[in-house]
Amino acid sequence: MTLAEIARQVGATPQGNAQTEISDVAPIERAVFGQISFVANAKYNRHVETTSASALVLLPDVPCSRIPTLRHLNPYLTFAKIIDLFYPEERRVPAGVHPSAIVDSGATVDPSAGIGPMVHIGTGSRIGRDSQIMASAFVGGDVRIGERCLIYPGVRILDDTIIGNDVIIHPGVVIGSDGFGFARTDRGMHKIKQVGWAEIQDNVEIGANTTIDRGALGPTVIGAGTKIDNLVQIAHNVEMGKNCIIVSQVGISGSTKLGDGVVLAGQVGLVGHIELGSGVQVGAQSGVSRSIPSGESWFGYPAREIHQSRRIVAVQDRLPDLWKRLLRLEKKVGVTSDESGE
Amino acid sequence: MTLAEIARQVGATPQGNAQTEISDVAPIERAVFGQISFVANAKYNRHVETTSASALVLLPDVPCSRIPTLRHLNPYLTFAKIIDLFYPEERRVPAGVHPSAIVDSGATVDPSAGIGPMVHIGTGSRIGRDSQIMASAFVGGDVRIGERCLIYPGVRILDDTIIGNDVIIHPGVVIGSDGFGFARTDRGMHKIKQVGWAEIQDNVEIGANTTIDRGALGPTVIGAGTKIDNLVQIAHNVEMGKNCIIVSQVGISGSTKLGDGVVLAGQVGLVGHIELGSGVQVGAQSGVSRSIPSGESWFGYPAREIHQSRRIVAVQDRLPDLWKRLLRLEKKVGVTSDESGE
Amino acid sequence: MTLAEIARQVGATPQGNAQTEISDVAPIERAVFGQISFVANAKYNRHVETTSASALVLLPDVPCSRIPTLRHLNPYLTFAKIIDLFYPEERRVPAGVHPSAIVDSGATVDPSAGIGPMVHIGTGSRIGRDSQIMASAFVGGDVRIGERCLIYPGVRILDDTIIGNDVIIHPGVVIGSDGFGFARTDRGMHKIKQVGWAEIQDNVEIGANTTIDRGALGPTVIGAGTKIDNLVQIAHNVEMGKNCIIVSQVGISGSTKLGDGVVLAGQVGLVGHIELGSGVQVGAQSGVSRSIPSGESWFGYPAREIHQSRRIVAVQDRLPDLWKRLLRLEKKVGVTSDESGE
Repeated sequence: MTLAEIARQVGATPQGNAQTEISDVAPIERAVFGQISFVANAKYNRHVETTSASALVLLPDVPCSRIPTLRHLNPYLTFAKIIDLFYPEERRVPAGVHPSAIVDSGATVDPSAGIGPMVHIGTGSRIGRDSQIMASAFVGGDVRIGERCLIYPGVRILDDTIIGNDVIIHPGVVIGSDGFGFARTDRGMHKIKQVGWAEIQDNVEIGANTTIDRGALGPTVIGAGTKIDNLVQIAHNVEMGKNCIIVSQVGISGSTKLGDGVVLAGQVGLVGHIELGSGVQVGAQSGVSRSIPSGESWFGYPAREIHQSRRIVAVQDRLPDLWKRLLRLEKKVGVTSDESGE
Repeated sequence: MTLAEIARQVGATPQGNAQTEISDVAPIERAVFGQISFVANAKYNRHVETTSASALVLLPDVPCSRIPTLRHLNPYLTFAKIIDLFYPEERRVPAGVHPSAIVDSGATVDPSAGIGPMVHIGTGSRIGRDSQIMASAFVGGDVRIGERCLIYPGVRILDDTIIGNDVIIHPGVVIGSDGFGFARTDRGMHKIKQVGWAEIQDNVEIGANTTIDRGALGPTVIGAGTKIDNLVQIAHNVEMGKNCIIVSQVGISGSTKLGDGVVLAGQVGLVGHIELGSGVQVGAQSGVSRSIPSGESWFGYPAREIHQSRRIVAVQDRLPDLWKRLLRLEKKVGVTSDESGE
Repeated sequence: MTLAEIARQVGATPQGNAQTEISDVAPIERAVFGQISFVANAKYNRHVETTSASALVLLPDVPCSRIPTLRHLNPYLTFAKIIDLFYPEERRVPAGVHPSAIVDSGATVDPSAGIGPMVHIGTGSRIGRDSQIMASAFVGGDVRIGERCLIYPGVRILDDTIIGNDVIIHPGVVIGSDGFGFARTDRGMHKIKQVGWAEIQDNVEIGANTTIDRGALGPTVIGAGTKIDNLVQIAHNVEMGKNCIIVSQVGISGSTKLGDGVVLAGQVGLVGHIELGSGVQVGAQSGVSRSIPSGESWFGYPAREIHQSRRIVAVQDRLPDLWKRLLRLEKKVGVTSDESGE
């Protein structure tokens, strides 16, 4: 494919020899002759002058005359579209049911759907058009899976789960497991039977080994377009809005609600029964114990509004100095105290 | 079922029309005509006046005259019992061995037990009365599983594990994997062969994708009645007492011991070789590096006794103010120092 | 086996009756007659005088005359070798392909390799000499697995993964899942197709339910001899050196690079696009947002060089006292301020 063709298909502006032949994509540090790469993060600009790539996707203002380039205000998205050109989506499971799969006679599988080897599908479940369920995945009873979903090997989708269209679920994910609910009694804990369900809306993607519990009563909801990374824990009755980004190892406790477009960085923890408004962003490893109004950014343990949190961290860095200066002041002022030593 | 019948079966006091017909349970925000709901947390009291539920379970002192109520000092437990009335426990795997399961001839399965499709059971293992092992679960060799256990799909129980009665294990759990033990040598790390086992006592529940390593030597022990949430890590030779509550994403390092009734909130980490006495409670995300005496509550990173920790957090909130006031004092007192600036 | 024989085989120095018969290994608190145990951590020295073990492995300078001992400067490694004597490695999966396994005709399995029940192996994959793949594991297409590897039940190895020799992968591990990459557009998120791969070098061990994403472009690399514990998250394009130790629940964000011999304690989080030099050590639960030079030890949230971090923690412990002393100084100096109260 020539650079000109690529430029046309992704809507970018070519500079330099647009007849350059491109055969593959590669990261800038590893790209070789015939490959195209990109820089979206200024941190990697230094590679522009040394890469062996045959072409680069760059922001309009990054200087580069050695090799031909494609220019676009969003090089990352542009490059994503170029990857799609070179790696078109392939079907992973052919239409039909593999002979080793166990599909209950009370289940309904669209003829265009692919059910892989050793998959289990329980009674009352429906698998929609062009959905693919890979090897050894488990689908319980009364589950609905929409169209064009991709369910990777070893996923466990328990009874009553509702999954929309175009959902991608990576290996080892568990959806619809019991929430963690117990009432204390005189004779130990009484399990609160978890009789709700989990609902995963359209265009959601869920990372490997993530767990999403069913509601205790009513649903746990993952809103349309939301993307969840690996090893995330989502407790019963969490309700998450649309287009949220939940990075790996985040934990969200029961009944907490997230608006649209919330971003939680890695290893964040949220307590239960709070609300994060739309557009809230929370920094990595933060521990959030209070509701956060829409649009705010928080950080820290305990989490605080980010500017306040940064001011606190700045002083923390100087605590040893602060302590010394306090002692000096005490001396100067003539405060002598049994409290002054360790 | 009438409210009067429900009241009688769960031992609560009806108020208002006890002949009201109830057909299901629901969360208070979603409940409709014919459903019963509850309020146990004062935070949700505002819904009492607006819910469409036909009845509510409430504390004796929460005002409500619009609709009939059941009154009890423990509304949560009372409601749990009502859920049990409407959703009686059902058998998930019929007695007998599914034809696709692979059960070693050296294994012993009680005729009342249910072994689901594509389950593997190794030699020397015993499955007790009325236990159910769901699809694609793996049981290694010389494993003992007691009576009335429920093993969800995709659980992996490795060789030599001992599991008591009435244990529930959610999908993706791994029990009896090798602990993380290596001795450094001149030529890299020498693996410490993990030759112990894991022991899960009666009435334990283990959440999805949690991992419990076998002992290096001797057992890793989860005490009777203990409840473990999703994605928890329990290292080799941990010994946990009875009725502990371990919330999701907690990590407990090797050889650490917990007494009875210990509560670890979400994402807590414990270092190895320490002891937490009975009744210890640790707040979310805390990092515990020392033993904690019985009955104490700790919090923070590093974790400290909770009152001390709260006093520290309170001052942390004012660190920017504290810094300014120190500078002002220095000026007032006439301390001028090259250390005073950034 | 006599103590003398053991001493000879592991290269330790016997003291006391070297003809003592030893039949098993055990932890010091549980050891009984006929068993050998060890003490490597001074914390457990008190057990030397009370253990019922018939022999102990000790450092040369730990006093013990009650029972025979083996002395060595590295008691832990010595004991590891003794465990190996009593528990020689056993084959878990016999050579050949179990009839219930599904091996694509385009895959190549060495005749000495063992493919367990209900395993899936996709087209183009190669399984090397004496490797064992246990029940229900999934191997996608174009995967290479070297010699003498041990793949536990329920592992998911996705397309294009490269695995060296002598690699151990515990249950539930996912390798080669899609990295978490999305470009924002006006109409929600555009998935960045993940077209790289994962490469696991020789002698790596990976703990239960850990997830290792494939590269977005190019590889994610785990260097030879590196040991990874349970529930760890390794994002796309991470490159890790040799002989690293990654303790459980660590999360490493995309494109971050680790040198050789890096040690990350439990629950550590690293942001993306940073570099940790060889020999770096990071304390438990630390949050690292900057590159760290070789050989340094860091700790804290946010992580700082360990000595600085310790000085800060020491002052944090005294913050309530510091606050009181500041107020006293203000009073003494005569600063009166509307800022002085809450």
